[in-house]
Amino acid sequence: MSKTIELAQHLEKLHINNMYKSDFYWTWDKTDEELDAIFTVADALRDLRERNKSTRIFDSGLGISIFRDNSTRTRFSFASACNLLGLTVQDLDEKKSQIAHGETVRETANMVSFMADVIGIRDDMFIGEGHKYQKTFMDAVKEGYRDGILEQQPTLVNLQCDVDHPTQCMADMLHIIHQFGGVENLKGKKIAMTWAYSPSYGKPLSVPQGVIGLMTRFGMDVVLAHPEGYDVMPEVEEIAKKNAAATGGSYKKVATMEEAFQDADIVYPKSWAPFAAMEERTKLYQAGDQAGIDALEKKLLAQNAQHKDWTCSEEMMKKTRNGSALYLHCLPADITGLSCPEGEVDNSVFDRYLVPLYKEASYKPYVIAAMIMMSKVKDPVSALMALDAAGKRKFF
Amino acid sequence: MSKTIELAQHLEKLHINNMYKSDFYWTWDKTDEELDAIFTVADALRDLRERNKSTRIFDSGLGISIFRDNSTRTRFSFASACNLLGLTVQDLDEKKSQIAHGETVRETANMVSFMADVIGIRDDMFIGEGHKYQKTFMDAVKEGYRDGILEQQPTLVNLQCDVDHPTQCMADMLHIIHQFGGVENLKGKKIAMTWAYSPSYGKPLSVPQGVIGLMTRFGMDVVLAHPEGYDVMPEVEEIAKKNAAATGGSYKKVATMEEAFQDADIVYPKSWAPFAAMEERTKLYQAGDQAGIDALEKKLLAQNAQHKDWTCSEEMMKKTRNGSALYLHCLPADITGLSCPEGEVDNSVFDRYLVPLYKEASYKPYVIAAMIMMSKVKDPVSALMALDAAGKRKFF
Amino acid sequence: MSKTIELAQHLEKLHINNMYKSDFYWTWDKTDEELDAIFTVADALRDLRERNKSTRIFDSGLGISIFRDNSTRTRFSFASACNLLGLTVQDLDEKKSQIAHGETVRETANMVSFMADVIGIRDDMFIGEGHKYQKTFMDAVKEGYRDGILEQQPTLVNLQCDVDHPTQCMADMLHIIHQFGGVENLKGKKIAMTWAYSPSYGKPLSVPQGVIGLMTRFGMDVVLAHPEGYDVMPEVEEIAKKNAAATGGSYKKVATMEEAFQDADIVYPKSWAPFAAMEERTKLYQAGDQAGIDALEKKLLAQNAQHKDWTCSEEMMKKTRNGSALYLHCLPADITGLSCPEGEVDNSVFDRYLVPLYKEASYKPYVIAAMIMMSKVKDPVSALMALDAAGKRKFF
Repeated sequence: MSKTIELAQHLEKLHINNMYKSDFYWTWDKTDEELDAIFTVADALRDLRERNKSTRIFDSGLGISIFRDNSTRTRFSFASACNLLGLTVQDLDEKKSQIAHGETVRETANMVSFMADVIGIRDDMFIGEGHKYQKTFMDAVKEGYRDGILEQQPTLVNLQCDVDHPTQCMADMLHIIHQFGGVENLKGKKIAMTWAYSPSYGKPLSVPQGVIGLMTRFGMDVVLAHPEGYDVMPEVEEIAKKNAAATGGSYKKVATMEEAFQDADIVYPKSWAPFAAMEERTKLYQAGDQAGIDALEKKLLAQNAQHKDWTCSEEMMKKTRNGSALYLHCLPADITGLSCPEGEVDNSVFDRYLVPLYKEASYKPYVIAAMIMMSKVKDPVSALMALDAAGKRKFF
Repeated sequence: MSKTIELAQHLEKLHINNMYKSDFYWTWDKTDEELDAIFTVADALRDLRERNKSTRIFDSGLGISIFRDNSTRTRFSFASACNLLGLTVQDLDEKKSQIAHGETVRETANMVSFMADVIGIRDDMFIGEGHKYQKTFMDAVKEGYRDGILEQQPTLVNLQCDVDHPTQCMADMLHIIHQFGGVENLKGKKIAMTWAYSPSYGKPLSVPQGVIGLMTRFGMDVVLAHPEGYDVMPEVEEIAKKNAAATGGSYKKVATMEEAFQDADIVYPKSWAPFAAMEERTKLYQAGDQAGIDALEKKLLAQNAQHKDWTCSEEMMKKTRNGSALYLHCLPADITGLSCPEGEVDNSVFDRYLVPLYKEASYKPYVIAAMIMMSKVKDPVSALMALDAAGKRKFF
Repeated sequence: MSKTIELAQHLEKLHINNMYKSDFYWTWDKTDEELDAIFTVADALRDLRERNKSTRIFDSGLGISIFRDNSTRTRFSFASACNLLGLTVQDLDEKKSQIAHGETVRETANMVSFMADVIGIRDDMFIGEGHKYQKTFMDAVKEGYRDGILEQQPTLVNLQCDVDHPTQCMADMLHIIHQFGGVENLKGKKIAMTWAYSPSYGKPLSVPQGVIGLMTRFGMDVVLAHPEGYDVMPEVEEIAKKNAAATGGSYKKVATMEEAFQDADIVYPKSWAPFAAMEERTKLYQAGDQAGIDALEKKLLAQNAQHKDWTCSEEMMKKTRNGSALYLHCLPADITGLSCPEGEVDNSVFDRYLVPLYKEASYKPYVIAAMIMMSKVKDPVSALMALDAAGKRKFF
């Protein structure tokens, strides 16, 4: 029996009927079994690919991608996932379109969604705006389908918003599961999500938020650490607390990187911007106050510079369990002595974890493909079994 | 019997043999039956799609798109149409190519057409140039095929030139046909193609020209209205007159928006540039006279500003038949109080017609796909019947 | 028996086992039989396409293209080749990615290669850097496969580096073979690869280097000519000499265009930059010395301007065998009186050779597709036979 068949049999036991035709905004919208289904299908698709089995479930169709922020790895992950399933990607590049000239989101949503099967949106620049854009877009698309404008209803994969980064955090989590030999081995493991210094400014909060919102669901001890003033969204912290209470794990905040790293099994040191400052920035942008934006940036860079000791150095790593915690990063990292004079992580630490870091990233296309498949295929169990029995992707 | 089979049976009665391997420049190059064929195939492809039937007629192949002006909806419509039929789009983006460095059109045409099945070109910026570019390009491609350079002969879909915008106007027309319950109900209906004020400058004339060149073929009373000086190309007016004479309809020009709207069944208020001024602009560009271009723009914006009363207000709409004419626009519109202080249409009017407006746009991908299919498939009747009988697009 | 079957039978006799899973950097890495295999498969794919046979060997999959210099024809050739085989192209555009922000090549290579089947890279700007980039990239990808990051090992097609331009020169060569009625007719033919004046600056050396590195393998008399100071890489000249010695042909350098053209059967007049100056430029760029770069450019343009007599004029063409040598160019050419006042070739000469020039270019997509096929298909003989026996690309 192939791994895919085993996984399909596991999938059969899960309650996943609500996933068909559903959007993927935030991991905490989904039940534990629904997340399990994503992991299961991602593993099955990878197994099929490794055996050169075709995983096409569409003979044609479009995946629309909208990147309102730069991206290489998420762009390529989405393209790979779409190709894996038989969809073609069509990018909406707002710079070369008429959208910049005052077109509303609702109109755009309908105009680019003719024949779209799935929509991938990245919009993480402005706190309070990214999720709202995705929601407005998808509401318009639903109405468009209802009103007979669109001949089908496309579904959403959130490729990063201001609140969550589910494709990243699900890939991170699948990596953890495989590194620890299964989800059943995670109970009681300590994971440290910590702020780290970077010479750049204004990195999104969606990764730390996504991590505490997701990792608290597996019985782990999740610790968040950051300098004063670098808080994440309080709503997401509430979710983390509730999750931990429900799964026998824990969620707490500590004040230093040292305390977070102490005996940690997993560490995720990464720069982000303070939530309150990002709220302020959003308002300044809305008001078109460039002087205010510049002043804020200057202030935040100065604030950042006071915390250069928040770095994943060799000394810091020694505090972790056996000095060899699993090091995570969503990439690209700011690497001390390689990409910048002082950054998030020592070059020697980063270099030691290169292979696991790339593996971590390699789950993202499969996670995205699994999200698409679960929302577009009514009976994914049968689909996996049929794919396992079917032909090769490379014909010769 | 499915709708597709019914449509295929209708198609069988039409004289359409000349469409195979032909280019689509202007609607007035085509016979009434040929246009009927496009509408029929567009409806059939939509019916197949709505029933999740595969409409792939290619297992591989390329659609080359060349946008010499910005575009979102036409770009996505062309991409959707190509995907629907199994073609992959390859964009020629002149900014990132060597073409800007003096390469001739003839050379470009051959170099980007290896293995191309269809070419979509938008070139509407300069009066006297857009159609010429398309013609030169396609002549080169035909010679390339004849000379053994290209292994097949790609065909053209005009995605907008300086003279006509056939994919837009055919989509508009298909929308009208469905809104009025069939082409047989259009005799004697009044359609008003009118200029409307916009704060922007230099919008193409291809929409009003395409509308009067096409809509005069269905027995309707077509009225064109614009302020003095905003004439369209006289050659196209001649075509409109001939069409009207042949179909028992009428074509006339009136001097005010009020007169055009009076008892109209359909209104299409939209900004465009004066033809003579656009000819002048083309010459200034050819001479590289930037000061002249700036002076002309200033003059035209001032001229525009004298006609702010040409706007599709609620008052204006009340003049139409029962105050509820079908409102058309190619989008995006300049909406008073939404996208600009004073524009082509009142926000309340535009908002009331949102669903039909989006539907109007939704026909474009199917019209483009039908144009491609009619030029690439020798026996489209059999093809539609085979597609109706064949498998699903989503396999599971 | 079809041409494809004949070609497959020829392919069967060649020693080509080392090509499976191999990269294509330089033609001189490959044996004569391996190059023969590329030509053979390219011709077979073209024959299949001309008979509307499907040449899909992949039902899904990605070709990643990385253009670190502008390109139209190579970009479209790669896109056509991928489509021909069933692959979708995903461009890595460094300007809209995070790569510009200090990401290392190794990381990029892994991040964009999830699910990649083939990688096409053009990096010809800096002497000493282009090949190095490709090698680093592919080493990373091999490690990524070994380490379980990538689920397969993508292979490279060099779309132009600082040393060789194999897809161009192989297309040029296949054109020559067909023009002269077979490779057996090339013994003793004289080909002149000569420098020619262009008003632009810094054109890559990869074409002249690729030509002398490849064309010396077919028993031809290869002559290189350029003004003093415009030397190509000495290592490539060594290869040209060795090739010539091995195949009974010859390689020599002469000091004037006249001497090179005298009795030539084939001429390839083209501008390039002096090797030593390009080395200097690379160092200036590495040092970020903009003033130095500007000064060098000025110096080189002045140096160029002393050699306007190096041009493929009608007079010059008269010196060739019967005044009618085959004129080659990789396009676009700088054409005297058409694209510039004084350039590489007279307009009348260029115009007379338009059809063969476009044919020359038309081989490139097939050469690229053959390179991909030979590296991705274990048994290409059977594959060609199966494709010949299989279905149509256009279904109707």
